Amino acid sequence: MTLPWTLPAAVELRDVGPRDGLQVHPPLPLVDRARLVTALIDAGLREIEVGSFVSPRAVPAMAGTAELLALLGPIPGVTRTALVPNERGARDALAAGADALTVTISASERYSVANTKMTRADGLAQVERICTLAQAAGTPVDVVVSCAFGSPYEGDVAPAEVGRICAAARDAGAQRVTCADTTGMATPARIAAVVAEVGSEIGLHLHETRGTGLVNAWAGLTLGVTRFDCSLGGIGGSPFAVGAAGNVATEELVFLLEDCGVATGVELPALLRASRLLAELVGELPSAVARAGGRSAGA
Amino acid sequence: MTLPWTLPAAVELRDVGPRDGLQVHPPLPLVDRARLVTALIDAGLREIEVGSFVSPRAVPAMAGTAELLALLGPIPGVTRTALVPNERGARDALAAGADALTVTISASERYSVANTKMTRADGLAQVERICTLAQAAGTPVDVVVSCAFGSPYEGDVAPAEVGRICAAARDAGAQRVTCADTTGMATPARIAAVVAEVGSEIGLHLHETRGTGLVNAWAGLTLGVTRFDCSLGGIGGSPFAVGAAGNVATEELVFLLEDCGVATGVELPALLRASRLLAELVGELPSAVARAGGRSAGA
Repeated sequence: MTLPWTLPAAVELRDVGPRDGLQVHPPLPLVDRARLVTALIDAGLREIEVGSFVSPRAVPAMAGTAELLALLGPIPGVTRTALVPNERGARDALAAGADALTVTISASERYSVANTKMTRADGLAQVERICTLAQAAGTPVDVVVSCAFGSPYEGDVAPAEVGRICAAARDAGAQRVTCADTTGMATPARIAAVVAEVGSEIGLHLHETRGTGLVNAWAGLTLGVTRFDCSLGGIGGSPFAVGAAGNVATEELVFLLEDCGVATGVELPALLRASRLLAELVGELPSAVARAGGRSAGA
Repeated sequence: MTLPWTLPAAVELRDVGPRDGLQVHPPLPLVDRARLVTALIDAGLREIEVGSFVSPRAVPAMAGTAELLALLGPIPGVTRTALVPNERGARDALAAGADALTVTISASERYSVANTKMTRADGLAQVERICTLAQAAGTPVDVVVSCAFGSPYEGDVAPAEVGRICAAARDAGAQRVTCADTTGMATPARIAAVVAEVGSEIGLHLHETRGTGLVNAWAGLTLGVTRFDCSLGGIGGSPFAVGAAGNVATEELVFLLEDCGVATGVELPALLRASRLLAELVGELPSAVARAGGRSAGA
Protein backbone atom coordinates (compact mmCIF):
# COMPACT_ATOMS: atom_id res chain seq x y z
CA MET A 1 0.00 0.00 0.00
CA THR A 2 0.98 3.64 -0.34
CA LEU A 3 1.96 5.03 3.03
CA PRO A 4 0.27 8.18 4.33
CA TRP A 5 3.68 9.77 4.91
CA THR A 6 6.22 10.90 2.34
CA LEU A 7 9.35 8.93 3.12
CA PRO A 8 12.72 9.02 1.39
CA ALA A 9 13.50 5.94 -0.72
CA ALA A 10 16.79 5.41 1.06
CA VAL A 11 18.78 6.68 4.02
CA GLU A 12 22.43 6.81 5.03
CA LEU A 13 23.19 5.26 8.39
CA ARG A 14 26.41 5.97 10.26
CA ASP A 15 27.14 3.46 12.98
CA VAL A 16 28.84 5.28 15.85
CA GLY A 17 28.90 2.24 18.14
CA PRO A 18 32.65 1.59 17.86
CA ARG A 19 33.18 5.18 19.12
CA ASP A 20 30.18 6.61 21.01
CA GLY A 21 29.22 3.14 22.22
CA LEU A 22 32.53 1.51 23.12
CA GLN A 23 33.92 4.64 24.77
CA VAL A 24 31.72 4.01 27.81
CA HIS A 25 32.84 0.37 28.12
CA PRO A 26 36.12 -1.04 29.43
CA PRO A 27 38.79 -0.96 26.70
CA LEU A 28 38.66 -3.78 24.14
CA PRO A 29 41.68 -5.23 22.35
CA LEU A 30 42.25 -3.56 18.97
CA VAL A 31 41.58 -6.82 17.20
CA ASP A 32 38.08 -6.97 18.71
CA ARG A 33 37.37 -3.36 17.76
CA ALA A 34 38.44 -4.27 14.22
CA ARG A 35 36.24 -7.41 14.18
CA LEU A 36 33.28 -5.27 15.20
CA VAL A 37 33.88 -2.73 12.44
CA THR A 38 34.28 -5.57 9.94
CA ALA A 39 31.04 -7.19 11.09
CA LEU A 40 29.23 -3.89 10.55
CA ILE A 41 30.71 -3.57 7.07
CA ASP A 42 29.67 -7.17 6.32
CA ALA A 43 26.11 -6.23 7.34
CA GLY A 44 26.09 -3.39 4.83
CA LEU A 45 27.00 -0.30 6.85
CA ARG A 46 28.93 2.12 4.68
CA GLU A 47 29.98 4.71 7.25
CA ILE A 48 31.32 3.83 10.66
CA GLU A 49 32.72 6.10 13.34
CA VAL A 50 35.56 3.76 14.25
CA GLY A 51 37.05 5.70 17.13
CA SER A 52 38.28 9.03 18.40
CA PHE A 53 41.58 10.84 18.81
CA VAL A 54 41.06 12.01 22.36
CA SER A 55 43.45 11.71 25.29
CA PRO A 56 43.84 8.02 26.20
CA ARG A 57 43.97 9.13 29.83
CA ALA A 58 40.53 10.74 29.52
CA VAL A 59 38.97 7.94 27.44
CA PRO A 60 41.05 4.76 27.75
CA ALA A 61 38.70 2.75 25.50
CA MET A 62 39.59 4.94 22.54
CA ALA A 63 43.38 4.57 22.84
CA GLY A 64 44.96 3.15 19.70
CA THR A 65 42.50 4.47 17.12
CA ALA A 66 45.43 5.22 14.77
CA GLU A 67 46.50 1.58 15.05
CA LEU A 68 42.89 0.49 14.48
CA LEU A 69 42.77 2.49 11.25
CA ALA A 70 46.05 0.90 10.16
CA LEU A 71 44.71 -2.56 11.04
CA LEU A 72 41.53 -1.96 9.02
CA GLY A 73 43.28 -0.25 6.12
CA PRO A 74 41.32 1.65 3.48
CA ILE A 75 38.12 -0.19 2.51
CA PRO A 76 36.59 0.64 -0.89
CA GLY A 77 33.11 2.13 -0.52
CA VAL A 78 33.43 2.46 3.24
CA THR A 79 34.02 5.65 5.22
CA ARG A 80 36.01 5.12 8.41
CA THR A 81 35.20 8.22 10.43
CA ALA A 82 37.11 9.48 13.46
CA LEU A 83 35.98 11.96 16.11
CA VAL A 84 38.52 14.66 16.88
CA PRO A 85 38.32 17.03 19.84
CA ASN A 86 40.89 19.57 18.66
CA GLU A 87 43.54 20.38 16.03
CA ARG A 88 46.07 17.98 17.47
CA GLY A 89 43.49 15.17 17.26
CA ALA A 90 42.64 16.22 13.71
CA ARG A 91 46.32 16.09 12.66
CA ASP A 92 46.67 12.64 14.20
CA ALA A 93 43.46 11.36 12.58
CA LEU A 94 44.44 12.70 9.18
CA ALA A 95 47.94 11.23 9.52
CA ALA A 96 46.36 7.88 10.43
CA GLY A 97 44.26 7.96 7.27
CA ALA A 98 40.75 8.57 8.63
CA ASP A 99 38.34 8.94 5.71
CA ALA A 100 36.21 11.59 7.44
CA LEU A 101 36.27 13.60 10.64
CA THR A 102 33.56 14.46 13.14
CA VAL A 103 33.99 17.47 15.42
CA THR A 104 31.55 18.43 18.16
CA ILE A 105 30.43 21.92 19.08
CA SER A 106 27.52 22.75 21.33
CA ALA A 107 24.36 24.73 20.82
CA SER A 108 24.45 25.35 24.57
CA GLU A 109 26.97 27.91 25.83
CA ARG A 110 27.08 26.45 29.33
CA TYR A 111 27.38 22.86 28.09
CA SER A 112 30.23 23.98 25.83
CA VAL A 113 32.14 25.61 28.63
CA ALA A 114 31.47 22.79 31.10
CA ASN A 115 32.49 20.01 28.71
CA THR A 116 35.17 21.54 26.50
CA LYS A 117 36.38 24.57 28.49
CA MET A 118 35.59 26.59 25.37
CA THR A 119 32.86 29.07 24.56
CA ARG A 120 30.78 28.30 21.50
CA ALA A 121 32.67 31.04 19.63
CA ASP A 122 36.00 29.41 20.53
CA GLY A 123 34.58 26.05 19.46
CA LEU A 124 33.56 27.44 16.09
CA ALA A 125 36.99 29.04 15.60
CA GLN A 126 38.55 25.64 16.30
CA VAL A 127 36.18 23.97 13.83
CA GLU A 128 37.41 26.41 11.20
CA ARG A 129 41.05 25.51 11.87
CA ILE A 130 40.22 21.78 11.77
CA CYS A 131 38.33 22.22 8.50
CA THR A 132 41.36 23.95 7.02
CA LEU A 133 43.59 21.03 8.01
CA ALA A 134 41.06 18.48 6.69
CA GLN A 135 40.54 20.34 3.44
CA ALA A 136 44.29 20.24 2.77
CA ALA A 137 44.08 16.43 3.16
CA GLY A 138 40.92 16.19 1.04
CA THR A 139 39.00 14.80 4.02
CA PRO A 140 35.40 15.86 4.73
CA VAL A 141 34.30 17.15 8.14
CA ASP A 142 30.91 16.63 9.80
CA VAL A 143 30.23 19.09 12.61
CA VAL A 144 28.03 17.54 15.29
CA VAL A 145 26.03 20.17 17.17
CA SER A 146 25.35 18.87 20.67
CA CYS A 147 22.33 19.91 22.77
CA ALA A 148 20.50 20.88 19.57
CA PHE A 149 17.13 19.95 21.11
CA GLY A 150 17.69 21.07 24.67
CA SER A 151 20.42 21.56 27.22
CA PRO A 152 20.74 20.13 30.71
CA TYR A 153 21.89 23.62 31.74
CA GLU A 154 19.69 26.15 29.94
CA GLY A 155 16.75 23.82 29.22
CA ASP A 156 15.29 24.99 25.94
CA VAL A 157 17.69 25.99 23.17
CA ALA A 158 16.05 28.22 20.58
CA PRO A 159 15.90 26.51 17.17
CA ALA A 160 17.01 29.80 15.61
CA GLU A 161 20.15 29.57 17.74
CA VAL A 162 20.73 26.01 16.49
CA GLY A 163 20.26 27.31 12.97
CA ARG A 164 22.84 30.03 13.58
CA ILE A 165 25.41 27.49 14.84
CA CYS A 166 24.76 25.10 11.94
CA ALA A 167 25.20 27.94 9.44
CA ALA A 168 28.40 29.02 11.18
CA ALA A 169 29.71 25.44 11.02
CA ARG A 170 29.04 25.33 7.28
CA ASP A 171 30.70 28.72 6.86
CA ALA A 172 33.69 27.36 8.76
CA GLY A 173 34.10 24.69 6.09
CA ALA A 174 32.05 21.70 7.32
CA GLN A 175 30.75 19.51 4.51
CA ARG A 176 27.99 18.18 6.74
CA VAL A 177 26.21 19.15 9.94
CA THR A 178 24.57 16.76 12.39
CA CYS A 179 22.18 17.83 15.13
CA ALA A 180 22.60 15.79 18.30
CA ASP A 181 20.13 15.16 21.09
CA THR A 182 22.92 14.73 23.58
CA THR A 183 20.84 14.19 26.70
CA GLY A 184 17.69 12.73 25.12
CA MET A 185 15.45 15.79 25.43
CA ALA A 186 14.04 15.73 21.88
CA THR A 187 10.51 14.84 20.86
CA PRO A 188 8.99 14.98 17.37
CA ALA A 189 7.88 18.57 18.05
CA ARG A 190 11.49 19.58 18.80
CA ILE A 191 12.76 17.72 15.73
CA ALA A 192 10.21 19.56 13.59
CA ALA A 193 11.22 22.93 15.04
CA VAL A 194 14.92 22.38 14.31
CA VAL A 195 14.34 20.92 10.83
CA ALA A 196 12.09 23.90 10.01
CA GLU A 197 14.96 26.20 10.97
CA VAL A 198 17.99 24.27 9.69
CA GLY A 199 16.49 22.32 6.76
CA SER A 200 16.38 18.57 6.22
CA GLU A 201 19.97 18.46 4.91
CA ILE A 202 21.26 17.50 8.32
CA GLY A 203 22.13 14.30 10.09
CA LEU A 204 20.35 13.35 13.30
CA HIS A 205 22.24 11.86 16.26
CA LEU A 206 19.62 10.66 18.73
CA HIS A 207 19.72 9.11 22.17
CA GLU A 208 17.25 6.87 23.99
CA THR A 209 17.66 8.58 27.37
CA ARG A 210 13.88 9.02 27.50
CA GLY A 211 13.00 6.23 25.05
CA THR A 212 12.25 8.67 22.23
CA GLY A 213 15.26 8.11 19.96
CA LEU A 214 13.49 5.93 17.41
CA VAL A 215 10.33 8.02 17.27
CA ASN A 216 12.47 11.13 16.80
CA ALA A 217 14.31 9.44 13.93
CA TRP A 218 10.94 8.55 12.40
CA ALA A 219 9.74 12.14 12.82
CA GLY A 220 12.87 13.38 11.05
CA LEU A 221 12.37 10.83 8.30
CA THR A 222 8.85 12.05 7.60
CA LEU A 223 10.31 15.57 7.30
CA GLY A 224 12.87 14.50 4.70
CA VAL A 225 15.94 13.83 6.84
CA THR A 226 18.01 11.02 5.29
CA ARG A 227 21.11 10.79 7.49
CA PHE A 228 21.01 9.10 10.88
CA ASP A 229 23.59 8.12 13.43
CA CYS A 230 22.91 4.84 15.20
CA SER A 231 24.80 2.43 17.38
CA LEU A 232 24.99 -1.35 17.12
CA GLY A 233 23.16 -2.82 20.10
CA GLY A 234 22.02 0.65 21.16
CA ILE A 235 25.15 0.99 23.27
CA GLY A 236 26.48 4.35 24.36
CA GLY A 237 25.37 7.12 26.61
CA SER A 238 26.16 7.02 30.25
CA PRO A 239 28.25 4.15 31.55
CA PHE A 240 26.16 4.36 34.71
CA ALA A 241 22.87 3.64 32.97
CA VAL A 242 23.60 0.98 30.36
CA GLY A 243 20.37 0.07 28.65
CA ALA A 244 18.75 3.35 29.37
CA ALA A 245 20.59 6.12 27.70
CA GLY A 246 22.35 4.80 24.63
CA ASN A 247 22.18 5.80 21.01
CA VAL A 248 19.33 4.75 18.75
CA ALA A 249 20.03 1.08 18.07
CA THR A 250 21.09 0.28 14.52
CA GLU A 251 19.00 -2.91 14.74
CA GLU A 252 15.79 -0.99 15.58
CA LEU A 253 16.39 1.57 12.85
CA VAL A 254 17.08 -1.08 10.19
CA PHE A 255 14.10 -3.21 11.29
CA LEU A 256 11.77 -0.21 11.22
CA LEU A 257 13.01 1.40 8.02
CA GLU A 258 13.20 -1.76 5.92
CA ASP A 259 9.69 -2.79 7.04
CA CYS A 260 8.47 0.63 5.89
CA GLY A 261 10.16 0.30 2.49
CA VAL A 262 13.06 2.66 3.18
CA ALA A 263 16.34 1.18 1.95
CA THR A 264 19.20 1.17 4.45
CA GLY A 265 21.64 -1.03 2.56
CA VAL A 266 21.86 -3.15 5.70
CA GLU A 267 20.85 -6.82 5.93
CA LEU A 268 19.21 -7.49 9.29
CA PRO A 269 20.36 -11.14 9.66
CA ALA A 270 23.99 -10.09 9.12
CA LEU A 271 23.49 -7.14 11.46
CA LEU A 272 22.20 -9.50 14.14
CA ARG A 273 25.39 -11.53 13.74
CA ALA A 274 27.30 -8.32 14.48
CA SER A 275 25.00 -7.79 17.51
CA ARG A 276 25.89 -11.23 18.84
CA LEU A 277 29.58 -10.47 18.47
CA LEU A 278 29.11 -7.19 20.31
CA ALA A 279 27.18 -8.92 23.09
CA GLU A 280 30.07 -11.38 23.48
CA LEU A 281 32.43 -8.43 23.85
CA VAL A 282 30.47 -6.04 26.09
CA GLY A 283 27.60 -8.05 27.60
CA GLU A 284 23.85 -7.54 27.40
CA LEU A 285 22.72 -4.99 24.81
CA PRO A 286 19.97 -2.39 25.15
CA SER A 287 18.63 -3.13 21.64
CA ALA A 288 15.27 -4.93 21.74
CA VAL A 289 15.65 -6.17 18.15
CA ALA A 290 19.04 -7.65 19.09
CA ARG A 291 17.15 -9.72 21.68
CA ALA A 292 13.90 -10.45 19.81
CA GLY A 293 15.22 -10.69 16.26
CA GLY A 294 13.40 -9.41 13.20
CA ARG A 295 9.80 -9.92 12.20
CA SER A 296 10.28 -13.48 11.07
CA ALA A 297 12.31 -16.17 12.78
CA GLY A 298 15.98 -16.05 11.88
CA ALA A 299 15.88 -12.41 10.85
CA MET B 1 5.22 26.67 16.19
CA THR B 2 2.66 24.81 14.11
CA LEU B 3 3.68 21.19 13.79
CA PRO B 4 3.94 19.62 10.32
CA TRP B 5 1.63 16.81 11.42
CA THR B 6 -2.06 16.98 12.24
CA LEU B 7 -2.34 15.76 15.81
CA PRO B 8 -5.43 15.36 17.96
CA ALA B 9 -5.77 17.94 20.74
CA ALA B 10 -6.17 15.22 23.36
CA VAL B 11 -5.94 11.46 23.77
CA GLU B 12 -7.39 8.86 26.12
CA LEU B 13 -4.82 6.70 27.84
CA ARG B 14 -5.73 3.41 29.47
CA ASP B 15 -3.10 2.14 31.88
CA VAL B 16 -3.04 -1.65 31.69
CA GLY B 17 -0.06 -2.02 34.02
CA PRO B 18 -2.05 -3.34 36.99
CA ARG B 19 -3.25 -6.17 34.71
CA ASP B 20 -1.01 -6.75 31.67
CA GLY B 21 2.02 -5.63 33.64
CA LEU B 22 1.57 -7.17 37.06
CA GLN B 23 0.35 -10.51 35.68
CA VAL B 24 3.93 -11.41 34.73
CA HIS B 25 5.27 -10.55 38.19
CA PRO B 26 5.00 -12.48 41.45
CA PRO B 27 1.63 -11.79 43.12
CA LEU B 28 1.39 -8.55 45.10
CA PRO B 29 -0.80 -8.02 48.17
CA LEU B 30 -4.18 -6.55 47.26
CA VAL B 31 -3.39 -3.42 49.21
CA ASP B 32 -0.33 -2.77 47.03
CA ARG B 33 -2.33 -3.35 43.84
CA ALA B 34 -4.84 -0.81 45.18
CA ARG B 35 -2.09 1.70 46.04
CA LEU B 36 -0.81 1.44 42.50
CA VAL B 37 -4.23 2.05 40.97
CA THR B 38 -4.73 5.00 43.32
CA ALA B 39 -1.34 6.46 42.38
CA LEU B 40 -2.31 6.25 38.70
CA ILE B 41 -5.61 7.99 39.40
CA ASP B 42 -3.76 10.66 41.39
CA ALA B 43 -1.54 11.22 38.34
CA GLY B 44 -4.58 11.82 36.17
CA LEU B 45 -5.26 8.48 34.49
CA ARG B 46 -9.01 8.06 33.95
CA GLU B 47 -9.14 4.46 32.75
CA ILE B 48 -7.18 1.65 34.36
CA GLU B 49 -7.29 -2.06 33.63
CA VAL B 50 -7.14 -3.06 37.27
CA GLY B 51 -7.02 -6.82 36.86
CA SER B 52 -8.49 -9.88 35.21
CA PHE B 53 -10.95 -12.60 36.07
CA VAL B 54 -8.87 -15.53 34.91
CA SER B 55 -8.11 -18.76 36.77
CA PRO B 56 -5.92 -17.93 39.80
CA ARG B 57 -4.11 -21.20 39.11
CA ALA B 58 -3.17 -20.04 35.60
CA VAL B 59 -2.31 -16.44 36.63
CA PRO B 60 -1.74 -16.26 40.39
CA ALA B 61 -0.91 -12.54 40.28
CA MET B 62 -4.48 -11.75 39.20
CA ALA B 63 -6.22 -13.65 42.00
CA GLY B 64 -8.51 -11.45 44.07
CA THR B 65 -9.48 -8.92 41.41
CA ALA B 66 -13.07 -8.95 42.75
CA GLU B 67 -11.71 -8.02 46.19
CA LEU B 68 -9.53 -5.35 44.59
CA LEU B 69 -12.59 -3.78 42.97
CA ALA B 70 -14.36 -3.85 46.34
CA LEU B 71 -11.34 -2.29 48.03
CA LEU B 72 -11.19 0.49 45.43
CA GLY B 73 -14.94 1.02 45.28
CA PRO B 74 -16.52 3.10 42.53
CA ILE B 75 -14.47 6.22 41.76
CA PRO B 76 -16.26 9.15 40.08
CA GLY B 77 -14.81 9.89 36.65
CA VAL B 78 -12.63 6.77 36.66
CA THR B 79 -13.22 3.57 34.70
CA ARG B 80 -11.95 0.45 36.48
CA THR B 81 -11.69 -2.06 33.66
CA ALA B 82 -11.33 -5.83 34.04
CA LEU B 83 -10.16 -8.35 31.47
CA VAL B 84 -12.40 -11.40 31.17
CA PRO B 85 -11.47 -14.59 29.32
CA ASN B 86 -14.95 -16.10 29.11
CA GLU B 87 -18.58 -15.78 30.21
CA ARG B 88 -17.85 -17.03 33.70
CA GLY B 89 -15.18 -14.35 34.09
CA ALA B 90 -17.58 -11.77 32.69
CA ARG B 91 -20.29 -12.72 35.21
CA ASP B 92 -17.76 -12.48 38.05
CA ALA B 93 -16.42 -9.13 36.84
CA LEU B 94 -19.90 -7.67 36.45
CA ALA B 95 -20.91 -8.97 39.88
CA ALA B 96 -17.77 -7.38 41.32
CA GLY B 97 -18.73 -4.02 39.83
CA ALA B 98 -16.15 -3.59 37.07
CA ASP B 99 -16.94 -0.39 35.15
CA ALA B 100 -15.88 -1.85 31.77
CA LEU B 101 -14.75 -5.17 30.36
CA THR B 102 -12.00 -6.09 27.95
CA VAL B 103 -12.18 -9.36 26.02
CA THR B 104 -9.46 -10.64 23.71
CA ILE B 105 -9.93 -12.36 20.39
CA SER B 106 -7.20 -12.96 17.85
CA ALA B 107 -6.74 -11.95 14.25
CA SER B 108 -4.59 -15.06 13.90
CA GLU B 109 -6.41 -18.40 13.69
CA ARG B 110 -3.44 -20.41 14.90
CA TYR B 111 -2.67 -18.01 17.77
CA SER B 112 -6.34 -18.21 18.80
CA VAL B 113 -6.35 -21.99 18.88
CA ALA B 114 -2.94 -22.22 20.58
CA ASN B 115 -3.75 -19.68 23.31
CA THR B 116 -7.46 -20.03 23.92
CA LYS B 117 -8.30 -23.47 22.49
CA MET B 118 -10.93 -21.70 20.42
CA THR B 119 -11.15 -20.87 16.73
CA ARG B 120 -11.64 -17.21 15.87
CA ALA B 121 -15.29 -17.97 15.07
CA ASP B 122 -15.76 -19.53 18.52
CA GLY B 123 -14.03 -16.54 20.07
CA LEU B 124 -16.40 -14.15 18.31
CA ALA B 125 -19.43 -16.18 19.39
CA GLN B 126 -18.17 -15.95 22.96
CA VAL B 127 -17.67 -12.18 22.60
CA GLU B 128 -21.31 -11.91 21.55
CA ARG B 129 -22.46 -13.78 24.67
CA ILE B 130 -20.23 -11.63 26.90
CA CYS B 131 -21.57 -8.46 25.27
CA THR B 132 -25.12 -9.62 25.98
CA LEU B 133 -24.26 -10.13 29.65
CA ALA B 134 -22.49 -6.77 29.85
CA GLN B 135 -25.26 -4.94 28.07
CA ALA B 136 -27.75 -6.22 30.63
CA ALA B 137 -25.52 -4.71 33.33
CA GLY B 138 -25.03 -1.46 31.38
CA THR B 139 -21.30 -2.11 31.19
CA PRO B 140 -19.30 -1.35 28.01
CA VAL B 141 -17.06 -3.94 26.36
CA ASP B 142 -13.79 -3.28 24.52
CA VAL B 143 -12.74 -6.15 22.27
CA VAL B 144 -8.97 -6.38 22.00
CA VAL B 145 -7.86 -7.98 18.73
CA SER B 146 -4.52 -9.67 19.30
CA CYS B 147 -1.94 -10.24 16.53
CA ALA B 148 -3.50 -7.39 14.54
CA PHE B 149 -0.13 -6.47 13.02
CA GLY B 150 1.37 -9.91 12.60
CA SER B 151 1.30 -13.36 14.10
CA PRO B 152 4.14 -15.46 15.42
CA TYR B 153 2.48 -18.38 13.60
CA GLU B 154 1.29 -17.11 10.22
CA GLY B 155 3.60 -14.07 10.00
CA ASP B 156 1.66 -11.44 8.09
CA VAL B 157 -2.02 -10.99 8.92
CA ALA B 158 -3.92 -9.28 6.11
CA PRO B 159 -5.26 -5.88 7.25
CA ALA B 160 -8.54 -6.75 5.49
CA GLU B 161 -8.78 -9.77 7.78
CA VAL B 162 -8.20 -7.52 10.82
CA GLY B 163 -10.92 -5.25 9.49
CA ARG B 164 -13.30 -8.17 9.19
CA ILE B 165 -12.65 -9.24 12.80
CA CYS B 166 -13.06 -5.69 14.12
CA ALA B 167 -16.36 -5.32 12.26
CA ALA B 168 -17.53 -8.67 13.60
CA ALA B 169 -16.63 -7.59 17.15
CA ARG B 170 -18.67 -4.41 16.74
CA ASP B 171 -21.54 -6.44 15.30
CA ALA B 172 -21.29 -8.71 18.34
CA GLY B 173 -22.00 -5.71 20.56
CA ALA B 174 -18.57 -4.29 21.45
CA GLN B 175 -18.64 -0.56 22.19
CA ARG B 176 -14.96 -0.27 21.39
CA VAL B 177 -12.30 -2.21 19.51
CA THR B 178 -8.58 -2.17 20.24
CA CYS B 179 -5.92 -3.51 17.88
CA ALA B 180 -3.06 -5.17 19.73
CA ASP B 181 0.51 -5.75 18.60
CA THR B 182 0.81 -8.81 20.81
CA THR B 183 4.32 -9.85 19.85
CA GLY B 184 5.75 -6.48 18.83
CA MET B 185 5.74 -6.97 15.06
CA ALA B 186 4.19 -3.63 14.12
CA THR B 187 5.92 -0.73 12.43
CA PRO B 188 4.38 2.55 11.25
CA ALA B 189 3.70 0.97 7.84
CA ARG B 190 1.67 -1.82 9.50
CA ILE B 191 -0.17 0.70 11.70
CA ALA B 192 -1.06 2.71 8.60
CA ALA B 193 -2.31 -0.38 6.77
CA VAL B 194 -4.60 -1.41 9.64
CA VAL B 195 -5.88 2.13 10.30
CA ALA B 196 -6.63 2.50 6.55
CA GLU B 197 -8.72 -0.66 6.77
CA VAL B 198 -10.33 -0.30 10.20
CA GLY B 199 -10.49 3.48 10.62
CA SER B 200 -8.96 5.64 13.34
CA GLU B 201 -11.79 4.92 15.81
CA ILE B 202 -9.76 2.16 17.42
CA GLY B 203 -7.53 1.85 20.40
CA LEU B 204 -3.92 0.76 19.99
CA HIS B 205 -2.28 -1.69 22.39
CA LEU B 206 1.42 -1.72 21.59
CA HIS B 207 4.42 -3.63 22.86
CA GLU B 208 8.11 -2.78 22.91
CA THR B 209 9.30 -6.27 21.94
CA ARG B 210 11.30 -4.71 19.11
CA GLY B 211 11.54 -1.20 20.56
CA THR B 212 8.88 0.17 18.21
CA GLY B 213 5.94 0.64 20.56
CA LEU B 214 6.32 4.38 21.01
CA VAL B 215 6.97 5.11 17.33
CA ASN B 216 3.93 3.01 16.43
CA ALA B 217 1.82 5.01 18.87
CA TRP B 218 3.12 8.20 17.28
CA ALA B 219 2.32 6.86 13.80
CA GLY B 220 -1.22 6.08 14.93
CA LEU B 221 -1.52 9.53 16.48
CA THR B 222 -0.60 11.24 13.20
CA LEU B 223 -3.35 9.16 11.55
CA GLY B 224 -5.99 10.33 14.02
CA VAL B 225 -5.97 7.53 16.60
CA THR B 226 -6.79 8.94 20.04
CA ARG B 227 -6.96 5.88 22.31
CA PHE B 228 -3.83 4.17 23.55
CA ASP B 229 -3.09 1.45 26.04
CA CYS B 230 0.06 1.92 28.06
CA SER B 231 1.64 0.48 31.15
CA LEU B 232 3.21 2.27 34.07
CA GLY B 233 6.94 1.60 34.01
CA GLY B 234 6.60 -0.19 30.68
CA ILE B 235 6.07 -3.46 32.54
CA GLY B 236 4.41 -6.43 30.93
CA GLY B 237 5.14 -8.81 28.14
CA SER B 238 7.14 -11.92 28.76
CA PRO B 239 8.24 -12.65 32.32
CA PHE B 240 11.39 -14.10 30.78
CA ALA B 241 12.45 -10.85 29.13
CA VAL B 242 11.57 -8.09 31.58
CA GLY B 243 12.74 -4.80 30.17
CA ALA B 244 12.55 -5.97 26.60
CA ALA B 245 9.03 -6.85 25.71
CA GLY B 246 6.67 -4.83 27.85
CA ASN B 247 3.89 -2.48 26.93
CA VAL B 248 4.50 1.07 25.79
CA ALA B 249 5.45 2.89 28.99
CA THR B 250 2.87 5.39 30.24
CA GLU B 251 5.76 7.68 31.23
CA GLU B 252 7.19 7.76 27.67
CA LEU B 253 3.78 8.35 26.11
CA VAL B 254 2.91 11.19 28.51
CA PHE B 255 6.38 12.79 28.14
CA LEU B 256 6.16 12.62 24.34
CA LEU B 257 2.55 13.69 23.93
CA GLU B 258 2.60 16.57 26.38
CA ASP B 259 5.82 17.94 24.83
CA CYS B 260 4.06 17.83 21.45
CA GLY B 261 1.02 19.70 22.76
CA VAL B 262 -1.32 16.71 22.95
CA ALA B 263 -3.26 16.70 26.22
CA THR B 264 -3.20 13.43 28.17
CA GLY B 265 -4.75 14.64 31.41
CA VAL B 266 -1.74 13.14 33.18
CA GLU B 267 0.76 15.12 35.25
CA LEU B 268 4.26 13.73 34.70
CA PRO B 269 5.64 14.53 38.18
CA ALA B 270 2.73 12.68 39.81
CA LEU B 271 3.12 9.86 37.31
CA LEU B 272 6.80 9.54 38.26
CA ARG B 273 5.73 9.20 41.89
CA ALA B 274 3.58 6.26 40.77
CA SER B 275 6.63 4.89 38.90
CA ARG B 276 8.70 5.02 42.07
CA LEU B 277 6.00 3.14 43.97
CA LEU B 278 5.88 0.52 41.21
CA ALA B 279 9.67 0.17 41.27
CA GLU B 280 9.50 -0.42 45.03
CA LEU B 281 6.98 -3.18 44.41
CA VAL B 282 8.42 -4.97 41.36
CA GLY B 283 12.01 -3.79 40.96
CA GLU B 284 13.73 -2.02 38.09
CA LEU B 285 11.39 -0.71 35.40
CA PRO B 286 11.89 -0.79 31.63
CA SER B 287 10.68 2.82 31.24
CA ALA B 288 13.51 5.21 30.34
CA VAL B 289 11.51 8.25 31.47
CA ALA B 290 10.95 6.54 34.83
CA ARG B 291 14.75 6.49 35.15
CA ALA B 292 15.69 9.79 33.52
CA GLY B 293 12.71 11.91 34.53
CA GLY B 294 11.07 14.50 32.32
CA ARG B 295 12.67 17.26 30.29
CA SER B 296 13.38 19.49 33.24
CA ALA B 297 14.71 18.46 36.62
CA GLY B 298 11.98 17.29 38.96
CA ALA B 299 9.56 16.40 36.17
